[in-house]
Amino acid sequence: MRKVAVVGVGQTKFSSAQEKTGVELFAEAAMDAINESNLKPGDVQALFVGNVLGDFSEGQGMVQAFITDNIGAFNIPANKYDGACASASMALRDAFMLVASGYYDIVLAGGTERAATMGTPLATRTFAMFSDSRYEYPCGITFPAVFALLAHLYARKYGIPLERLKEQMAAVSVQSYRHGRFNPKAHLHKEVTIDDVLSSFMVSTPIQLHDCCPFSDGAAAVILASEERANRLTDRPVYIVGAGQASSGPLSSQQDYLPRFRAREVSAKQAYDMAGLAPSDIDICELHDCFSIASLIAAEGLGFFDFGTSGQAWQKGQADIGGRLAVNPSGGLKSKGHPIGATGGGQVYEIVRQLRGEVEPERQVDGARIGMTDTLGGDGGTICNIILKRGW
Amino acid sequence: MRKVAVVGVGQTKFSSAQEKTGVELFAEAAMDAINESNLKPGDVQALFVGNVLGDFSEGQGMVQAFITDNIGAFNIPANKYDGACASASMALRDAFMLVASGYYDIVLAGGTERAATMGTPLATRTFAMFSDSRYEYPCGITFPAVFALLAHLYARKYGIPLERLKEQMAAVSVQSYRHGRFNPKAHLHKEVTIDDVLSSFMVSTPIQLHDCCPFSDGAAAVILASEERANRLTDRPVYIVGAGQASSGPLSSQQDYLPRFRAREVSAKQAYDMAGLAPSDIDICELHDCFSIASLIAAEGLGFFDFGTSGQAWQKGQADIGGRLAVNPSGGLKSKGHPIGATGGGQVYEIVRQLRGEVEPERQVDGARIGMTDTLGGDGGTICNIILKRGW
Repeated sequence: MRKVAVVGVGQTKFSSAQEKTGVELFAEAAMDAINESNLKPGDVQALFVGNVLGDFSEGQGMVQAFITDNIGAFNIPANKYDGACASASMALRDAFMLVASGYYDIVLAGGTERAATMGTPLATRTFAMFSDSRYEYPCGITFPAVFALLAHLYARKYGIPLERLKEQMAAVSVQSYRHGRFNPKAHLHKEVTIDDVLSSFMVSTPIQLHDCCPFSDGAAAVILASEERANRLTDRPVYIVGAGQASSGPLSSQQDYLPRFRAREVSAKQAYDMAGLAPSDIDICELHDCFSIASLIAAEGLGFFDFGTSGQAWQKGQADIGGRLAVNPSGGLKSKGHPIGATGGGQVYEIVRQLRGEVEPERQVDGARIGMTDTLGGDGGTICNIILKRGW
Repeated sequence: MRKVAVVGVGQTKFSSAQEKTGVELFAEAAMDAINESNLKPGDVQALFVGNVLGDFSEGQGMVQAFITDNIGAFNIPANKYDGACASASMALRDAFMLVASGYYDIVLAGGTERAATMGTPLATRTFAMFSDSRYEYPCGITFPAVFALLAHLYARKYGIPLERLKEQMAAVSVQSYRHGRFNPKAHLHKEVTIDDVLSSFMVSTPIQLHDCCPFSDGAAAVILASEERANRLTDRPVYIVGAGQASSGPLSSQQDYLPRFRAREVSAKQAYDMAGLAPSDIDICELHDCFSIASLIAAEGLGFFDFGTSGQAWQKGQADIGGRLAVNPSGGLKSKGHPIGATGGGQVYEIVRQLRGEVEPERQVDGARIGMTDTLGGDGGTICNIILKRGW
């Protein structure tokens, strides 16, 4: 297999409802990525794009075909990936594999979504379709409720009083908001304290408003190139050195394993094994904090902290810039925002720019060499992990 | 790249509305394919599945994750492909490339859909979202109208009086119905004459009821294996020797090229070049006859007949079993049915069984060695072609 590098990235501002279509949002991010790669649209050989709710948000199916035409990459093969929030990461993983294997030399991957445009009630209702349609959402389990149940399970399994867990979860949100304030492309720029989180309105006990990420509009795009092409296009290649993906069915089928997700552990192991790396090698991780409890579960599933201890780690700054590793220096889904089908692309955008040392000084992780993404779709139905390494 | 073989196939009956979920339909087809391959579900390393309207037909997103759990292929990576009618072919093409490149040895690919369950009005309305959401369907152009416009363009471009074109189109439908009567898994079993077609009700001038395929429920599944594994699993491997895929934007951007589709010609060339074959080598083709005019356009775009002459070819039996090549011996979308996200899988199912010589005698193409599929998504937004060859 050939080495594969990221040679250019682009991201729109993640935002509340705006006027651009999903095609136009992706085109904006894609043209930034193409320009940064010193390429032209006609150089792109294939498109891999995540998009989940386009049918509902703007009545546009098969968005990938219209993107190719819109950006001037005519008649190339174009795939749309739909694995809920993990969609763009699935797109990136397949793009990576097909460049590594020699099918393509230059590909465009990422995602686009207008989840904010839909409004929270419709987005919540439609997005609930990404849990099981027979045994989960007909019982009223939208995603805030899924993660509320997991929070209760987490508290019970690890013997943490719920009030203490709520303080730990609040620490996650406060850190994410703090980082996101310095990210000009983040959706929410707020200064939030532990007290603000704990006094925000209750969404689904014990999850409060500031434990939840917003629905966002936005797009992110990444150009991947074979090593040979990358060396001619950039002197700052960031290599994809590992990738994993795994699936699972309804939460009920995972039973006592919860609140851990076996799919995450399978996916992360694939990525670590491919990269020949261990959790202790990761300097920075953009992980899937759709709810603050999801951050605690993810950080443990990825091997960064012992099971049941990551809340304390956040409280002690071990998941912060300057700590054991920096988690979500972008602001994460919590502050940067969550345009569902684009989220994994936004994670890779952040990791690449961090490894290049080009983000705002207030949130730059100095000397970071290895970064990882973690994207969770639905209630764990699809989980993807990608490991990136500075190539110079 | 390694050689890749189909070692097992399965298909549900394509049908009108029924009670099984999309997950259950795919599981039925998948278990047939797995059993025929002498494998167990745990041997499957990845899933690639087409599904387009699952969000609307039964409120189930991310169907691929729930399929893995349902069939007992736990935690494998699972992708959903959504390129309108071309979805299962996209899934099969990616599955093929990732086995060829050595990432996987055994994969499951195909598609599932409950389009009939939705009822024709809702299916037509939602499926129109797979044309351009700004300039096409808001103008009232659902797919019957798209192909009606293409029929008018075809008649004018090639100087064929509309009444003569209607007779040619009728010949396509009559042939498809005739083949489908002998396919026990076909949706529509009807004996239809030229007069029946020409006296059926007008849907969108000049397209009449019997020029249109039905919306169907159904699923199809295919097991792909590396050559080494295939040789141990079966003595009748059918190799995928070529695959192509291309995209295009709104019809308006294709202008004077219409009624030809440049995406089809790009995709077919990729498949022919990869296989080292020419149109004259193809013994049998399952092509995308969503409307009878689509068959004429496809057969010319694939290089089987000169532009503007394929209607006459159908009338003379040159596209029939025993003719120049056999087109749609399954009954095609017209009679076999059109479960949108599964259709490309159904095409491969048919080709494989034809090459093995195991379909009903009334529609068996004797001595067929090389078959091809053609699947068109939306109004040409995505087109895929796959070429298969008997391996013994």
